[in-house]
Amino acid sequence: MKYHEIFENALASLKTEKRYRIFADLERQAGKFPRAIWRAENGLEREILVWCSNDYLGMGQHPDVIKAMTDTAQKMGSGAGGTRNISGTNRPLVELEAELADLHQKEAALAFTSGFVSNEAAISTIAKLLPNCLILSDALNHASMIAGVKNSGMQKQVWRHNDLEHLEELLKAAGNDRAKLIVFESVYSMDGDIAPIEQIADLADKYNAMTYIDEVHAVGMYGERGAGICEREGLMDRIDVIEGTLAKAYGTLGGYITGKACIIDAVRSYAPGFIFTTAMPPAIAAAASTSVRHLKNSKTEREGQQRQAASTKKKLSEAGLPVMPSETHIVPIFVGDPDLCKKASDMLLEEHGIYIQPINYPTVPRGTERLRITPTPFHEDALIDDLVDALNDVWARLGLSFIAPGAVYDINKQPEQQVFEAAGG
Amino acid sequence: MKYHEIFENALASLKTEKRYRIFADLERQAGKFPRAIWRAENGLEREILVWCSNDYLGMGQHPDVIKAMTDTAQKMGSGAGGTRNISGTNRPLVELEAELADLHQKEAALAFTSGFVSNEAAISTIAKLLPNCLILSDALNHASMIAGVKNSGMQKQVWRHNDLEHLEELLKAAGNDRAKLIVFESVYSMDGDIAPIEQIADLADKYNAMTYIDEVHAVGMYGERGAGICEREGLMDRIDVIEGTLAKAYGTLGGYITGKACIIDAVRSYAPGFIFTTAMPPAIAAAASTSVRHLKNSKTEREGQQRQAASTKKKLSEAGLPVMPSETHIVPIFVGDPDLCKKASDMLLEEHGIYIQPINYPTVPRGTERLRITPTPFHEDALIDDLVDALNDVWARLGLSFIAPGAVYDINKQPEQQVFEAAGG
Repeated sequence: MKYHEIFENALASLKTEKRYRIFADLERQAGKFPRAIWRAENGLEREILVWCSNDYLGMGQHPDVIKAMTDTAQKMGSGAGGTRNISGTNRPLVELEAELADLHQKEAALAFTSGFVSNEAAISTIAKLLPNCLILSDALNHASMIAGVKNSGMQKQVWRHNDLEHLEELLKAAGNDRAKLIVFESVYSMDGDIAPIEQIADLADKYNAMTYIDEVHAVGMYGERGAGICEREGLMDRIDVIEGTLAKAYGTLGGYITGKACIIDAVRSYAPGFIFTTAMPPAIAAAASTSVRHLKNSKTEREGQQRQAASTKKKLSEAGLPVMPSETHIVPIFVGDPDLCKKASDMLLEEHGIYIQPINYPTVPRGTERLRITPTPFHEDALIDDLVDALNDVWARLGLSFIAPGAVYDINKQPEQQVFEAAGG
Repeated sequence: MKYHEIFENALASLKTEKRYRIFADLERQAGKFPRAIWRAENGLEREILVWCSNDYLGMGQHPDVIKAMTDTAQKMGSGAGGTRNISGTNRPLVELEAELADLHQKEAALAFTSGFVSNEAAISTIAKLLPNCLILSDALNHASMIAGVKNSGMQKQVWRHNDLEHLEELLKAAGNDRAKLIVFESVYSMDGDIAPIEQIADLADKYNAMTYIDEVHAVGMYGERGAGICEREGLMDRIDVIEGTLAKAYGTLGGYITGKACIIDAVRSYAPGFIFTTAMPPAIAAAASTSVRHLKNSKTEREGQQRQAASTKKKLSEAGLPVMPSETHIVPIFVGDPDLCKKASDMLLEEHGIYIQPINYPTVPRGTERLRITPTPFHEDALIDDLVDALNDVWARLGLSFIAPGAVYDINKQPEQQVFEAAGG
């Protein structure tokens, strides 16, 4: 058994498949977002523009959020000092959980140090507590939800993405008496489409199932107070557990669940991933609370982002770039090849100072590799124009396909039905 | 299917077993550690003394650590803005990983947002990559390691705690040709005992197994530069993967692994719990680096802690309190009943202003419930005397057992072999 060879081989196979990931070394700059300093492998530094941040509203540089973090660190120190039970239930964290329960109009909330852990811990624990639970999981659910489903050890059935008929078929087959947990997302982050939440809730009622929604790409960004798509559509009370993140639109770190007190308390009491982990630092909790509170009251960021996202989509589409259909702030551009996707990303960074990381398998299915652009309120019109120019240049030089100006690229259609020859390059 | 009843019942059973946990609402105070503000359920506030923090050296209030955090937050904002791949590989995090690799004298390091995730992700990924891997796991391994073992889906065998003969028996039965991963801890945090690391490494060599050690309760605290027990015993190069935390002695947040570059890169490239999670904020990474660097150069904290821990053990033992044997800074006091353990903790907090949370099942086996005391360099002699007085009072009033002054309480012996009647009452 030559252990090191095995690891070397595992890495070599990623390289052969062109999906070995090299992380760009970036330094964010508060007050200058979306600009950042990029350090190339040769050590040279350059200011670049980030077009793929999950800090969707730039709240990570909001002066009030930063001030809450620094004030609290000065007052309470840098860490929590233990698990929640040992000594980690700090005041700012208690307040954050109250803020989150209020946001989603639920009885209780529980914070975790990551959204991944919140999904893994909550889904696996809820499913394990329900006798003979059947988990019904949307086909495009995030890796953290899949981890929760798998680690529960309960039976799962995957329903075709956003396909209500398929979901109903599976619910009906399981019968009203069996415990069933439907897990899905509101906004799917790689395509930007939205789940038919109301109809899923209707089906859950009809067949007596529990519902668990992941709103990580929606919280802060949709709804009157930023509680997400469920709030925007008046459906918060129709879903049993709403999961969210503090690390995207809220600009900090951590994840959470909200729901009825008995459900949240059961996860708090039974989930190893919650019980046996150090609590988030009070400074992070205070920053997150400030951000959540700010976005409850201010719509400026949401409106700015939606305006710039719409403008970005329109301009890219008018240029004939293969923008995939998206109902949200997420702007995916189809490439369809891992190597070209990586090359496009590298050229954008090295030659245009624009950072958009390649999205390859396993994040998306093979053959649907893409660039995923996330305009924020801080991506002004002139920056959008620069982006279009840079993409045009890269597309032409790499021989990537353009489509009819104004069209969208539908990955469900055959290429010959929609793709024009690469112009120029 | 009445869902809410199921959760209510699950909670009721914890209450019946007296192991329903109520988290104390504490507010740490930088500069005053180990003092904190406790908010009782009636809303009243009181300054109390924390005797069970995992901020073992008080680094969470170190001015340099706090300054690194606040400076970096002001410069780079409150969050990382994405997964490592998306835009989360920030400069302070790259520097932290270099600092950690140097600490353990390994080729590479990888940081996670929690120690739980670092164990879960690393163990499950390493084991999955090794064909037909057999995991050999110490019986007292932490929940996060158990999660990694379980989620790998590979075969596991549990060897009796620190029992080299049993481990060798299992290794021999598996044979030299099968891939084997030995996972264990250096310091077991609930008992305070230490693994026979050198002999385990010898066995790993003899039978060609990989070794994975969890040093979370040792990093920062043992060894010339604070790299842990392996450093103290000159064994860092004998272990393939050393895992540690930034959330205990280093006073911040997060976990990490270090090892040969190919192993670390394989975990980086294959572990969903790493790939699909937002990176730690640059401010946290900068605070952690500062703390690691400080404890590489300063022994004051380590020496202070070891002195105060030894003094605490001695004074408690002289008072006839049932201190369990511990080779480390951890001072467990035997109670042996979940209800009395909770009552003792409540009385200490409410009547003596001393916070030591009860340690009940599932953290320790039923019947071995205990109070777990962690003296820091900041628990001065006078505070130790107060602690002894408070415990004496609580022990007497609850009718808990004292032992012969100067003895230790051995949970492997029958009570009648060692316990004296409660004095006074």
